Amino acid sequence: MTSELNELGAREVAGLVASGKAGVEEVVAACIARVEAREPDVGAFEWFDADHALEQARALDNGPVKGVLHGVPLGVKDIIDTRDMPTRNGSPIHADRRPSSDASCVALSREAGAVVLGKTVTTEFAYFFPGKTRNPHNPDHTTGGSSMGSAAGVADRMFPIGFGSQTAASVTRPAAYCGAVGYKATTGAFDLQGVCGLAASYDTLGFLCREIEDVSLMREALLGDRPPPPRDDDAPPRVGFVRTPWWNEADAATHRALESAAGKLADAGAEVTEPELPAEFGGLVATHKLVMAFDAARARAYEYVNHPDELSPQFTALMEEGRAVSYVDYRAAQERSAACRRRLADLMSGFDVLLAPSAPGEAPEGHAATGDPLFSRMWTLLHVPSVTLPVAAGDSGLPIGVQVVGKARGDGALLADARWIYDRLR
Amino acid sequence: MTSELNELGAREVAGLVASGKAGVEEVVAACIARVEAREPDVGAFEWFDADHALEQARALDNGPVKGVLHGVPLGVKDIIDTRDMPTRNGSPIHADRRPSSDASCVALSREAGAVVLGKTVTTEFAYFFPGKTRNPHNPDHTTGGSSMGSAAGVADRMFPIGFGSQTAASVTRPAAYCGAVGYKATTGAFDLQGVCGLAASYDTLGFLCREIEDVSLMREALLGDRPPPPRDDDAPPRVGFVRTPWWNEADAATHRALESAAGKLADAGAEVTEPELPAEFGGLVATHKLVMAFDAARARAYEYVNHPDELSPQFTALMEEGRAVSYVDYRAAQERSAACRRRLADLMSGFDVLLAPSAPGEAPEGHAATGDPLFSRMWTLLHVPSVTLPVAAGDSGLPIGVQVVGKARGDGALLADARWIYDRLR
Repeated sequence: MTSELNELGAREVAGLVASGKAGVEEVVAACIARVEAREPDVGAFEWFDADHALEQARALDNGPVKGVLHGVPLGVKDIIDTRDMPTRNGSPIHADRRPSSDASCVALSREAGAVVLGKTVTTEFAYFFPGKTRNPHNPDHTTGGSSMGSAAGVADRMFPIGFGSQTAASVTRPAAYCGAVGYKATTGAFDLQGVCGLAASYDTLGFLCREIEDVSLMREALLGDRPPPPRDDDAPPRVGFVRTPWWNEADAATHRALESAAGKLADAGAEVTEPELPAEFGGLVATHKLVMAFDAARARAYEYVNHPDELSPQFTALMEEGRAVSYVDYRAAQERSAACRRRLADLMSGFDVLLAPSAPGEAPEGHAATGDPLFSRMWTLLHVPSVTLPVAAGDSGLPIGVQVVGKARGDGALLADARWIYDRLR
Repeated sequence: MTSELNELGAREVAGLVASGKAGVEEVVAACIARVEAREPDVGAFEWFDADHALEQARALDNGPVKGVLHGVPLGVKDIIDTRDMPTRNGSPIHADRRPSSDASCVALSREAGAVVLGKTVTTEFAYFFPGKTRNPHNPDHTTGGSSMGSAAGVADRMFPIGFGSQTAASVTRPAAYCGAVGYKATTGAFDLQGVCGLAASYDTLGFLCREIEDVSLMREALLGDRPPPPRDDDAPPRVGFVRTPWWNEADAATHRALESAAGKLADAGAEVTEPELPAEFGGLVATHKLVMAFDAARARAYEYVNHPDELSPQFTALMEEGRAVSYVDYRAAQERSAACRRRLADLMSGFDVLLAPSAPGEAPEGHAATGDPLFSRMWTLLHVPSVTLPVAAGDSGLPIGVQVVGKARGDGALLADARWIYDRLR
């Protein structure tokens, strides 16, 4: 049995441990064995110490059940502070950084009994410059960024759940490329103390995992939100199938994956229609880029001013782009964004969820870049939650995801609907 | 002349230095002299090193003019990270904390030429448990919290401008109690990387200073926002005088200060009327407390879980209050808040600014508490910017402020209006 514990979801692990059917050490040992076998090919970890993980596990085994995550191995993206492990933010500038506290999400996870298995690879400051992680389905392909280590580690069964974050496409895209479930929360849903920021208008925590119920479990640990009641089989969600203005940028396999998903949901009884997005939504990719650059130029001013030679060309370009944006243009972009958020809320009043592409196609070959964030920028700007579900494969056999988008601040309802949908598509 | 350089505003200092009429070292030396004379009575600083301040000054004197803050001595609240000074967040838990980076606001200020004079006293995690600072007008009275060192230091002419932050009343109240100008920004206006968070729904940066033009100068350094054009003498603002539902909690001197200000503005040609706030606004103090407690219980989870014995009883009570709030109640409170923000925007469409109390009265005697945040909680919840202007005195001769409230995201216009108003009330 030990050899399969690393394959289980977080809720399954917590259930086994709480009922005494498995020890935390046994669970963690299974994950470590998987990491040791696969890490040379995958490179999910920025920092990993098997002994330290086992120490945490034994301490849990020697005490009472701490909470809903008791015994759950957790991958923590290396832009998230940990008091007992380095946190390098994907940058040589922070190579020696040792935070004095855990980030709030880590502290709450640990309080609920999670084991921090290690720190997972991130791109530089969660922007574009890639880390070392390889796609577990084919090491010649990118994982997508920025939450690359958490996505690859989850997809490769190294751990059941990992923390990611999203400012453009940093959860959605690696989830789609690696074949993981990727949950990007409503902006502002989670406290971000101890999480390295990129653009405060958009930064949000996200989770990579394999089961939607594990998203709810983590929300329970962090927010006290109870898991949503499941949607009845005979009360299917109203689904708006949104090809988006960038449909023609997606490849044929992505088109097929989305159309097939929409068809299956309709066959299962869901009301599936194709609402038209307001025309001005086509401009939101450019608006997202502008706001993100302006914000990032402030958030990472310390590094840009004091360590310019240790930034990648990509990051330097973002900083310079952001510094060139006038405050007047920034404010206008924010006002346009607020107006579009109101328009989306109106549009979504007729739907439970929207169905949209997660990415233009399979994970691209090569490791110089992390793929195109095109299909996430608009939703991230709009502050809505989304779940990427790995439900198809492309021509190279790599995963393709579909994105289920919920209403702002309706994360619980989205998760119930995404579960209903995933059960019919997987 | 040297003896008076510490009395000048930030814009005056920057002008003198840029034109070669004063050296940065001379300015900083004047501030140091004031600190050395007064610090034993006032206690504005958590960390102060005259040599280190002079080193920064000499480095600036030896180079070109860096930016709009060139030579401006700056007090930095000790919840804001500095790479060359400790940042203790007002807590023994962080007594040895040495950040590896400057907070974004510090990095940008330094890039624009500011000298960080030292770290100013804060309450514990910017909540209620007081630091050592005494009111410069009477050391037996509180300064108010939490930005107590920055407010007292500015009021006592130790430095022209200081960083504060506000989650409930942490800029407005100490500004009013100490007799400083206090600017609390629209929520989200400034990046908060490297600023210790208390409640993400409300946390915002603020400035303590003596001249409104210095607020605009700092906004230029941090955001690239150009100072607003001054309001013409013959185009006075439309002022809504709002006594608020808590008017009877304010003392007679505060009533007189507000009524006198409203009268003077009307005499100067402003249209002053008394709009009625929607009835549900009376519940916003309780709503603010609930959301702040829930958020704080997440933001400072690390300290609560790992260092419970090093938290004050006040902070422990906040954590426990926040942990007892259900997610359902939290979400309902956030939805009520969003509805009230829309109602305020409607109401303010007929006004340029609102005029309201800053605090219930003068700074209370004693140092066991920092006074009542009552008159700020609602505006902080509503995310609007405000400027406190020290324009009156109470029965004990201590300052009384009036609060000028602007429209959300209309900080520039608020500053122009506040300037027009201050010119007529000071």
